[in-house]
Amino acid sequence: MVVVRMNKVTIAFQGENGAYSEEALIKFCELNSINFETKNVYSFRKLFEEIISGCGFGMVPIENSNAGSVVANYDLFSEFADEVELVGEFKLPVNHNLLVKSGTKLSDIKKVYSHPQALSQCSNFLEKNGIEAISFGDTAGAAKFVSETDEAQVASLSSVLCSEIYGLDVLSDDVKNADDNTTRFFLVKRKGLEFNYDLTKSNKSTIFFRTRDFAGALYKCLGAFATNGFNLTKIESRPSKVKKFDYVFFVDVESDLTGDVAEKCLEELSFFAKDVKIGRYYSRE
Amino acid sequence: MVVVRMNKVTIAFQGENGAYSEEALIKFCELNSINFETKNVYSFRKLFEEIISGCGFGMVPIENSNAGSVVANYDLFSEFADEVELVGEFKLPVNHNLLVKSGTKLSDIKKVYSHPQALSQCSNFLEKNGIEAISFGDTAGAAKFVSETDEAQVASLSSVLCSEIYGLDVLSDDVKNADDNTTRFFLVKRKGLEFNYDLTKSNKSTIFFRTRDFAGALYKCLGAFATNGFNLTKIESRPSKVKKFDYVFFVDVESDLTGDVAEKCLEELSFFAKDVKIGRYYSRE
Repeated sequence: MVVVRMNKVTIAFQGENGAYSEEALIKFCELNSINFETKNVYSFRKLFEEIISGCGFGMVPIENSNAGSVVANYDLFSEFADEVELVGEFKLPVNHNLLVKSGTKLSDIKKVYSHPQALSQCSNFLEKNGIEAISFGDTAGAAKFVSETDEAQVASLSSVLCSEIYGLDVLSDDVKNADDNTTRFFLVKRKGLEFNYDLTKSNKSTIFFRTRDFAGALYKCLGAFATNGFNLTKIESRPSKVKKFDYVFFVDVESDLTGDVAEKCLEELSFFAKDVKIGRYYSRE
Repeated sequence: MVVVRMNKVTIAFQGENGAYSEEALIKFCELNSINFETKNVYSFRKLFEEIISGCGFGMVPIENSNAGSVVANYDLFSEFADEVELVGEFKLPVNHNLLVKSGTKLSDIKKVYSHPQALSQCSNFLEKNGIEAISFGDTAGAAKFVSETDEAQVASLSSVLCSEIYGLDVLSDDVKNADDNTTRFFLVKRKGLEFNYDLTKSNKSTIFFRTRDFAGALYKCLGAFATNGFNLTKIESRPSKVKKFDYVFFVDVESDLTGDVAEKCLEELSFFAKDVKIGRYYSRE
């Protein structure tokens, strides 16, 4: 028996230690027996820079079941479509906790700091309690800030892990708008970079394209999938940044899009779309 | 000749005085000879509350040509679909200005306050100059804050009008990612409320629907428009909040969707979609 020694990979994530992105990448790597270490950066653009010209890997949040797409990352995928590849998809159930310094009561709180997505996911609770929502780069950074600031009457929305790391109390673990709050992540690598773990069984794809310029083009593009039997699970449009109120599209398909029928589908798509790019990956909940 | 005396209407907008929403509603009303006054509120939810149970009218930002959809408002349209009606559409060219207290230099600035959409629209400038972006409820409120705070080394991204209202200097008027930055607004009214201005010549529609639960449903829904000759200018999907990773859709059509062919289109749509709602309105650039 030949024992292959797996390379240790460094995977970047956005935010402070304790961020949900770090939790997601730890869980994905453990489930898939990937030998890894983590590296944090402080913006999504820097995360893509790490993937393209740094450590080569990154865990990128792409969608939350309640707040919707993380559009900044869709735009970065659009900008760097030629330089990155999707490796895996992972869905992390997320629970936000209201973290405070010891002794702070709910009625004391005037401001809560967190990532805009977390604030959006807890908007009903914040409006009901008259608490001002203040955006912060990430949920874990917000916890760190609350632990260090001289400001009284403040809280953060962050992971339980953060309460341990930054010495805060969990005042409430029940502040979300919807009970079912899950964030989707892509594990992304630099195009062409070797990755010798056995995630080769792709079962899902995301296709990026621009429609050609004629009436009904989007309908015909979607028809390439529908008429060949591929079910779309999501469609996302983002400004093309080429023309005003012109869009690029990302569609998710429950198939790795290989084989004769998939080839026919992609040929048909290319007839109505341009700049078509496909990411095939392994989805694991 | 009968002179009809037009009612004065009160139109709500989100933000402080000087907000782009206020600028948009002033321009739209002036172009259409509407006798109006403005009323400001401090969240998009409160804006919808004003429309439904307050002054009856609101100017709602829905999309920016660079940053994309204002998803919070799509979600509020989805939540209150039965209680509001679209009246008009207006596109306002937006230019953000870097506003500072007298004497502040670019190299001094450590933090900039503005609405998340404005921060997103100027992200390249901010990253290049190492300026931290801090979210604020609205662009005009950010200018007010900068004028009042004791913090040094701060700026806001706001309208020129704000520099006049709040006594700030325009340090730069060239900080946007894209030259062509336009925000789309809907003038919205309470369902059934009388509005006796002559905006009756609707030339555009936005259709809200949920797909029925079968493979290819979205493709078939879009086919109702395509095969009947109606061109879609936009499609937006948002989490349905009913099921995880399930969506509601908003499509924009360059037609008021009246007449026999439109009726056939909508009948076909209802076969594949449920909860179909149509907003017909007058679009003016």
